[in-house]
Amino acid sequence: VLHSDYGEQYRPRQGPLAAARVAMIGAGQLARMTHQAAIDLDIELVVLAGSADEPAVLAGAPYLLGPYSDLGALTAAAEAAGGPGVLGAPGVVTFDHELVPRRLLRQLEEQGYALRPGSGARRQLSERGYPVPAFAEIQSRRDIVAFGAAHGWPLVLKARSGGYDGRGVFVVDGPGDVPDGLDSGTADEPGWLVEEHIDLQAELAVLVGRRPSGDSVVYPVVATTQIDGICHWLVTPAEVEPELAGHAQRLARALADDIGAVGICAVEFFVGPGGRLVINELALRPHNSGHASIEANVTSQFHQHLRAVLDWPLGATDLVAPAAAMVNLIAPDANLMISRNLPQALEVEGVHVHLYGKSPRPGRKIGHVTALGRHGEAALGAATAAADLLLGR
Amino acid sequence: VLHSDYGEQYRPRQGPLAAARVAMIGAGQLARMTHQAAIDLDIELVVLAGSADEPAVLAGAPYLLGPYSDLGALTAAAEAAGGPGVLGAPGVVTFDHELVPRRLLRQLEEQGYALRPGSGARRQLSERGYPVPAFAEIQSRRDIVAFGAAHGWPLVLKARSGGYDGRGVFVVDGPGDVPDGLDSGTADEPGWLVEEHIDLQAELAVLVGRRPSGDSVVYPVVATTQIDGICHWLVTPAEVEPELAGHAQRLARALADDIGAVGICAVEFFVGPGGRLVINELALRPHNSGHASIEANVTSQFHQHLRAVLDWPLGATDLVAPAAAMVNLIAPDANLMISRNLPQALEVEGVHVHLYGKSPRPGRKIGHVTALGRHGEAALGAATAAADLLLGR
Repeated sequence: VLHSDYGEQYRPRQGPLAAARVAMIGAGQLARMTHQAAIDLDIELVVLAGSADEPAVLAGAPYLLGPYSDLGALTAAAEAAGGPGVLGAPGVVTFDHELVPRRLLRQLEEQGYALRPGSGARRQLSERGYPVPAFAEIQSRRDIVAFGAAHGWPLVLKARSGGYDGRGVFVVDGPGDVPDGLDSGTADEPGWLVEEHIDLQAELAVLVGRRPSGDSVVYPVVATTQIDGICHWLVTPAEVEPELAGHAQRLARALADDIGAVGICAVEFFVGPGGRLVINELALRPHNSGHASIEANVTSQFHQHLRAVLDWPLGATDLVAPAAAMVNLIAPDANLMISRNLPQALEVEGVHVHLYGKSPRPGRKIGHVTALGRHGEAALGAATAAADLLLGR
Repeated sequence: VLHSDYGEQYRPRQGPLAAARVAMIGAGQLARMTHQAAIDLDIELVVLAGSADEPAVLAGAPYLLGPYSDLGALTAAAEAAGGPGVLGAPGVVTFDHELVPRRLLRQLEEQGYALRPGSGARRQLSERGYPVPAFAEIQSRRDIVAFGAAHGWPLVLKARSGGYDGRGVFVVDGPGDVPDGLDSGTADEPGWLVEEHIDLQAELAVLVGRRPSGDSVVYPVVATTQIDGICHWLVTPAEVEPELAGHAQRLARALADDIGAVGICAVEFFVGPGGRLVINELALRPHNSGHASIEANVTSQFHQHLRAVLDWPLGATDLVAPAAAMVNLIAPDANLMISRNLPQALEVEGVHVHLYGKSPRPGRKIGHVTALGRHGEAALGAATAAADLLLGR
């Protein structure tokens, strides 16, 4: 009883019923690794993919093809996960990305599907009193100069939407560097924000797993290293003062509660001078900063996300080793033959290679490498050595 | 260019080429967990399944349907993995079980496929001087009585083929208990062996990973507990004298070399009075005694098997925790609703549940639970508690 033609591509599995079914909108590497976790618990994870060569489809997740911006495609995916009221359980729908228009999320909820997180989980943080960098919406070049005069230079110019992994973000050093021709947003253009530039001492990330009932668990704090806005590597636990780590964990957990997060909620922090902690970004889904959890924590973020969206008991978040590190595999160019480099990289003792099945393109994340160790430096050394070999560096 | 109609069911994946392709004959839980590992390394694991509801197919492994006793089906699977000479690499073929007739293995090798392990990897151990229980082929009831007189009672009566997980094995207490009507094997019947009965002090298992080039790695020794010939639980590392553990590891490694094993080779030992170590069984594939390696060892047996059959560098085998335990989920009856019990079982801290997607039938292994711990007892306690909840005990 599928609501649209999109559903025709999906064949319910043969044989015994799965322990549960979940629809995931999107079929990238987050969906791919969620599918691997779903196999453990015999959860059928039905993904909505834009094309059949996406990472989760290549890993064998059952899938529907369709655009995430189309209500028919979203409904078909939700139906494949059970439909409203099937066996008393509404179809649980969760997300590999945050690109689905809010209007469609609300329409799905009105049809009775259980969106996790729901359309009401909101990202406006400053209104709720959480520490964020000073910021302002701008209408003109003059607004930028005024903001710089008030908060100091440099400042950060950000596109209001469409930006991620460092795209649409510019640092402006002084009044003379403000780009020309900057106008406020129209229907076709995103518009811009200015934001205080933090003199970064560190970048941290904290994952929270949260059930619809409100139970939550928090992961050890991770220290990330970003270059041009893209996470290149991370170490867990972050080597910071316990007070600072505890503060970040408490903020992340309070925030997840406050916005009604369900599933994994990832909070990224800037640490400024004097240990000032401000929230940089928030993601309501499994997140790159949690990839090491597959090997490093008792419960991986992907298992945790599934348990949370199904309102099942959450798992322990402890590290299983003193430390771990994760290095992203960011393709240098389109000619990379990662499979040719793989055997040599596996010579590096104790590394865990995760490839996503993606064609290499310059700057594209095509996999990651994790290593455990006695301390962060040792783990990072091993993971970096393997990543360098994989990327032919 | 597939060799038979069986191949028509298989569609090569769209998008970027996989890092490697491997065919696995059989699609049970071993293939399912190998598929999960294959996703990490972007290896396309094509399985030959008897039906579309088998565990690896439900987990999304690309598959062909066909009988493992049919040369056409085996050839189609080998072709799907690359075929002889494709890109200079022959199709690598490995196994989820050991049921393929040797005659067909030899025919596949003659066609140029790389069988790993090869058809020559043999199981006759006593001829090579390895310690095994005393045994004899029997022709009649009188042979059994004579064997008992020579080696003592009780003795063990075993079907020569078709027996596993305790099937086809009988303990005979004395001359008066020998079953009537026992004849030697014919073409249709398996025939029987008698074997010395060992007064078991412990049962151990050792996994070896071995490459075609001869490089090998050995895992820490595991202590298994079998009931009626079926492994019910295990603890790693086995709590035995280091000398005994070292002896078992050396024997297993020498044996893997001697028989030309490739991939995972699992050696099961009986420990008799006085620490006497004899080889009970040998498996040339991933094995139940290695399931805890998914979480407990740096390199899981499934990753190791793939690396070994592809002749890639082998991975470290160290435990990541002081100890771990694994409990098999053996269905008590066909009415078990394991998914209903799953959320409660996940309340047990730190357990890793693996469900295989199999319909419950009495005595059928439908999953397993692993837990890490400071010592074996703690880990076994947690894994057992979760298993009991899952099975409604």
